[in-house]
Amino acid sequence: MSKAPRTAISPTREENYPEWYQQVIRAADLAENSPVRGCMVIKPWGYQLWENVQRALDDMFKATGHQNAYFPLFIPMSYLEKEAEHVDGFAKECAVVTHHRLEPDPDGGLRPAGKLEEPLIVRPTSETIIGATYAKWVQSYRDLPILINQWANVVRWEMRTRMFLRTAEFLWQEGHTVHATSEEAVEETEKMVEVYRDFAENWMAMPVIVGSKTPLERFPGAVETLSIEAMMQDRKALQAGTSHFLGQNFSKAQEIKFQSESGDIEFAWTTSWGVSTRLIGALIMTHSDDDGLVLPPRLAPTHVVIQPIYKDDSRAEVMEYVQSLRDELAAQTYANAPVRVTIDDRDIRGGEKKWYHVKRGVPIRLEVGPKDMAAGTVFCGIRNQPKSVGIDRAELVATIGEKLATLQQELFDAALKMREDNTVELKSEAEFRDFFADKGDTAITGGFAWCHYSDEDSLQPLLKELKVTIRCVPRTDNATEGTCFLTGKPAAQRAIFAKAY
Amino acid sequence: MSKAPRTAISPTREENYPEWYQQVIRAADLAENSPVRGCMVIKPWGYQLWENVQRALDDMFKATGHQNAYFPLFIPMSYLEKEAEHVDGFAKECAVVTHHRLEPDPDGGLRPAGKLEEPLIVRPTSETIIGATYAKWVQSYRDLPILINQWANVVRWEMRTRMFLRTAEFLWQEGHTVHATSEEAVEETEKMVEVYRDFAENWMAMPVIVGSKTPLERFPGAVETLSIEAMMQDRKALQAGTSHFLGQNFSKAQEIKFQSESGDIEFAWTTSWGVSTRLIGALIMTHSDDDGLVLPPRLAPTHVVIQPIYKDDSRAEVMEYVQSLRDELAAQTYANAPVRVTIDDRDIRGGEKKWYHVKRGVPIRLEVGPKDMAAGTVFCGIRNQPKSVGIDRAELVATIGEKLATLQQELFDAALKMREDNTVELKSEAEFRDFFADKGDTAITGGFAWCHYSDEDSLQPLLKELKVTIRCVPRTDNATEGTCFLTGKPAAQRAIFAKAY
Repeated sequence: MSKAPRTAISPTREENYPEWYQQVIRAADLAENSPVRGCMVIKPWGYQLWENVQRALDDMFKATGHQNAYFPLFIPMSYLEKEAEHVDGFAKECAVVTHHRLEPDPDGGLRPAGKLEEPLIVRPTSETIIGATYAKWVQSYRDLPILINQWANVVRWEMRTRMFLRTAEFLWQEGHTVHATSEEAVEETEKMVEVYRDFAENWMAMPVIVGSKTPLERFPGAVETLSIEAMMQDRKALQAGTSHFLGQNFSKAQEIKFQSESGDIEFAWTTSWGVSTRLIGALIMTHSDDDGLVLPPRLAPTHVVIQPIYKDDSRAEVMEYVQSLRDELAAQTYANAPVRVTIDDRDIRGGEKKWYHVKRGVPIRLEVGPKDMAAGTVFCGIRNQPKSVGIDRAELVATIGEKLATLQQELFDAALKMREDNTVELKSEAEFRDFFADKGDTAITGGFAWCHYSDEDSLQPLLKELKVTIRCVPRTDNATEGTCFLTGKPAAQRAIFAKAY
Repeated sequence: MSKAPRTAISPTREENYPEWYQQVIRAADLAENSPVRGCMVIKPWGYQLWENVQRALDDMFKATGHQNAYFPLFIPMSYLEKEAEHVDGFAKECAVVTHHRLEPDPDGGLRPAGKLEEPLIVRPTSETIIGATYAKWVQSYRDLPILINQWANVVRWEMRTRMFLRTAEFLWQEGHTVHATSEEAVEETEKMVEVYRDFAENWMAMPVIVGSKTPLERFPGAVETLSIEAMMQDRKALQAGTSHFLGQNFSKAQEIKFQSESGDIEFAWTTSWGVSTRLIGALIMTHSDDDGLVLPPRLAPTHVVIQPIYKDDSRAEVMEYVQSLRDELAAQTYANAPVRVTIDDRDIRGGEKKWYHVKRGVPIRLEVGPKDMAAGTVFCGIRNQPKSVGIDRAELVATIGEKLATLQQELFDAALKMREDNTVELKSEAEFRDFFADKGDTAITGGFAWCHYSDEDSLQPLLKELKVTIRCVPRTDNATEGTCFLTGKPAAQRAIFAKAY
């Protein structure tokens, strides 16, 4: 009678991917559903991860010349009325403030009172209100460019929510820039999607494809939307960041005008770009395994956790030893910063403690007891390795930065291999249908399909039927000649098709 | 005919203090009113200041064992109904979300649609929703304490708003902790008000008085509220931070119960504490002068700005020189961090450039031209000194940290002297009336008055008439015997009375 290997997370990815995802979040104590429909509580371990994301991205934004600012949470309803495409995109999912007071109701409860003259929308994104502000700031070409970002919460009243991936309220950053020329605004749009690619690949260890959204998939009101698209372990695509060239659409609606060097009054060119707490969902689904969360070292709140192992009579000695080990490790550097080390000396069983940190994704876990001390070794578990191994203490200290760097690289390589193994080129409707057909109830289906296509509209019935979307027209390798996989017509470009979050 | 000295800010503090305040904000480009009533746009220079406040406070919170998390923006209306005092305190100023969709109206505009079953309140503070979450987290004494903080936006629908001091939406941090005993919760409340005092005095260079709020001035639902109170230059008090011991009031309303070591089920003891963007208002009014903002070096986004002075033929040489000066200065440290130096080589007049940085409060301003280069000197203006002076370049570099430290200390000393010069002890109604009487239309009146008082209720008519409030019962010097200044009755304690923001 064979015994299946036990995993810390049940169900496994193969058994039920969506449920596995929820269980990883729970086991790692990242977040939970809140009493308010569709909103989540981000718990300390999850929030530390977000703080690390914020810090890294914020440094990158500042290095590319951007400054932070803060704009109001509320948007007057009339602002949304100005840009027709934009309001169509967001009107169905807006939280609307209509009153500014509560008063006792006859049943002993409360009811809204103090009706507002004009309803206010809780920002689903801030193009309109920031644009109205910029209109006042911009008079002359000398005032340009404006390069501003804000870290904020936004609300989109989604009907089906899922922690980190799609929540009614989420945290994000939104960059909003204004330029004197179309060329400069396009350059900004491309620069920021490249910042996102850099962050995704080098910090999150998540390979992404940079591409243009097709007209039907663009941000409401944008002329062009660039995105980074990542493949999750269920082979679905996740859009992890977007950068929009807004042309003059918003500046015309909002009257962002300036006097050019030649003295003419011109409408400015604007961009916006953002990533959100959805990145945490992407991180989870890119690296985690059936034992729980796996964190890339560059973003892990803790790099190394030390578990001292002692009985009552050896406690003092072991604690002194692990404290000195902690100090030596913390004096090492990884990715130009000190190694982050903690000691877990809680009074719980060793096995429970081990799995606690495994499930939370801590990159390196050390166990040290009297025997290890006597031998001058440390028992070392690396999160992506199946077994812990003994290692000489001095060697561990000397190589800790290297071990973290190796893990970071291995996570990236594994994710890239997963994507490459699940990317195909499809040339006919039959191939397309077969690739995206449901293969059972594990929710693991398909992958990325490169397909030539002639026009987006003609594909819609098939895409809707199979729940497939065009993710992007990749920036590289897209301008090859071919024939549309559906219609057989000549096609000058190809795109990536996938099921998506 | 004498000519009055020109000031960069008009009106001056003496002429019209409230208007001076608005003009300092405008001249320093910190913030502006937004199109949404009562909300402000925090501009990059103001937001950098807030980022520095956040960073310093966040480090202090973490050093005292707290972690960050994030809770939902929206609070179900029913939650506010549970704690009677709390809802009384906030019901009059709540923004209420009643709908979750917009739809076209017959006039071609939009109207709210999708009525919510239960209205949602935009958080005015988060005790109720965080408490409801904690109730799920806390089962046993082993789960305690919970020490969590969140950085967030909140909304209180104020009728009269003023930038930074009182806005409908503001940014803040709110700590919310849970403890097994009353003693621990009281200790936490006191620890955090001490963190605020430390931050105010050592980072903001703003002397504060730590004290207890009287029952009528407490946070709605609190057993005790501690606050830090600072004197602004118009001699009004500004409450700059509060720390609340909530007793078991909220844990009873929200059912935060735990099994104690002895096995009994007990209600937990909670605290909350917060400071907000109001601190920026406090900073402005503590140090700024009739030439604009004055920033304490520890919080200044830029410590030193260098203005190169050149003609076309000397540009390259001067720029090379100031770049090397910038590098030398930036290699120095102040307050354990690198000195923050920028070069302003914009093509605008020297005088205009000088006043630009003076009005923005940059601590040290340097001018360097060919003559200075030849002499090996730098022309140096320190923000709290009336005149710039020439100084040897090497000496400047060697002493830059010291100069910043001296400025930080001088700002604190001047603010403390201002407070002491305007603090009195009053013993009768006549003295009290005289001290707080309007002295003209400059809005600069009164100061801090220490007065013995017997009971708070009996004072209310007089306090309302004179628009004076009890700021706090200071933690020191309060338990002296005396007689009530109003009733002549024996009084065991004294409090600080002042007009306030």
